[in-house]
Amino acid sequence: MKTRPAYPAKVYLNGDILDADQAKISVFDRGFIFGDGIYEVMAQINGRFFYKKPHLDRLKWCLGEIDISLDVDALERDIPALLEASELVDKDCLLYIQVSRGVAPRQHSFPKGIPPTVMMYAWEKKLPDIDNDHASVVTMEDFRWSRCDIKMTSLLGNTMANEHAMQNDCYETVFERHGLITEASHCNVFFVKDGVVCTHPAGPYLLNGITRIIVLEICEKLQLPFRLEGVPAAEVSNMDEAFLTGTGSQVRAIKKIDDHTYFEKEPGPITQQIQLAFLDLKRAREGS
Amino acid sequence: MKTRPAYPAKVYLNGDILDADQAKISVFDRGFIFGDGIYEVMAQINGRFFYKKPHLDRLKWCLGEIDISLDVDALERDIPALLEASELVDKDCLLYIQVSRGVAPRQHSFPKGIPPTVMMYAWEKKLPDIDNDHASVVTMEDFRWSRCDIKMTSLLGNTMANEHAMQNDCYETVFERHGLITEASHCNVFFVKDGVVCTHPAGPYLLNGITRIIVLEICEKLQLPFRLEGVPAAEVSNMDEAFLTGTGSQVRAIKKIDDHTYFEKEPGPITQQIQLAFLDLKRAREGS
Repeated sequence: MKTRPAYPAKVYLNGDILDADQAKISVFDRGFIFGDGIYEVMAQINGRFFYKKPHLDRLKWCLGEIDISLDVDALERDIPALLEASELVDKDCLLYIQVSRGVAPRQHSFPKGIPPTVMMYAWEKKLPDIDNDHASVVTMEDFRWSRCDIKMTSLLGNTMANEHAMQNDCYETVFERHGLITEASHCNVFFVKDGVVCTHPAGPYLLNGITRIIVLEICEKLQLPFRLEGVPAAEVSNMDEAFLTGTGSQVRAIKKIDDHTYFEKEPGPITQQIQLAFLDLKRAREGS
Repeated sequence: MKTRPAYPAKVYLNGDILDADQAKISVFDRGFIFGDGIYEVMAQINGRFFYKKPHLDRLKWCLGEIDISLDVDALERDIPALLEASELVDKDCLLYIQVSRGVAPRQHSFPKGIPPTVMMYAWEKKLPDIDNDHASVVTMEDFRWSRCDIKMTSLLGNTMANEHAMQNDCYETVFERHGLITEASHCNVFFVKDGVVCTHPAGPYLLNGITRIIVLEICEKLQLPFRLEGVPAAEVSNMDEAFLTGTGSQVRAIKKIDDHTYFEKEPGPITQQIQLAFLDLKRAREGS
């Protein structure tokens, strides 16, 4: 089971860097009242943010999708001061960014002309070279909305699904929609069958993870055949391998899905090949 | 168009009553990070909360659905002090209650043993005897989750839909799911055809509004025939009358839906009959 994380030392809030317990927002922040916000998580590895541009481009895109106007380039320029204050310059760490629409008297429609609330914090985290935590997962019918491509903070459905995993002593809950496996509560999902890598196509039913995109690029580079097709939930036990991807989870082998076990000791060969290629990418410090 | 509301004078936050601009929560509140909370709105009319017990029972039920443990009876006992501080004792007002899971380092699954964050505020509002604002509404395919029966604060989808209404100079967006009209972004929806009142059955696709329940009770009392059936979206222009219900909207006639106009000056006779019966109920101060 996962251990609970701790609070970070410092929090960036609207331009100020504060002790974590001093970082407070109005109860009228629409992030609190309506879950009206967007977030990102990215990893600093070997002193550089890994695939920083795709993460920040996605942040811009998501903000645009819900009509929050923010200068993301200015936000990016504030990251070094936060890392400095957090004593994380050049250290491996994760950075969390959250942008809400801002503070206004409660009314569903979007207030105009208010500044967004911007919050960031970083915490030390050395991601393992190869993730040797093997995940057990459970499946569940997806009950979330159909704009899962927006990385938003209205995440109650995701937290309920993740709690369902914990209740079943699992790491993740994998969603099925219209009979196909789409993604998990905070990861993407891949399967391998007869040497072909398979994952649900990007679209409104899943968050197009940066690690998901990297894995597809790895498949191209290694000339591993892949298909952008959702695997039928009824077929998961017939797959040879399965793995999760995510910024924190990297490429994590799925050992067991519901009652079906993929492997006892070592993940399958394609999963391992992709994990090694992902490690090479990190070592090359590419993509930042 | 609606005018933007103002901030209330006072906010109740975890037992304290504060000036609104002093009411602040941690950025690590799961209400802010995950939209992980439940809310309620109820109206004080003629010095008593209208249907208080059903509102608080629903709050209890919703909290139970997402495993937040809170003594709602203790919260209820704190309401009079908030009204006192807000100078709203015996005045017509609306009360907003929000309960989030509480403050914890960010992790999707539910932290155990932390106290929930409880926030309440009230603002003066004299609801009209009969709501003579006639609503124009637009329809939209429902893209929200399939647990709309939980009155939660992960409301980005609802705010987007409501903004869509505003962009179309409308009061509300009415959702269609699987071809049937279910509810609106913050109201329930009724139709009338050949003297029969019709609304989608309660269930996971809609919030079972207290005013919705009251209107069904009115139908029984007045011996108005009604059917708990979703009206096909393709049939809305063939209906004779339509109206919205909600704590703030009460029973509000729908004048126009998309390009179809139901009436020019006066709502249809059944809508008016229900509005009058609802006014009688308020005057009788029943149900509190």
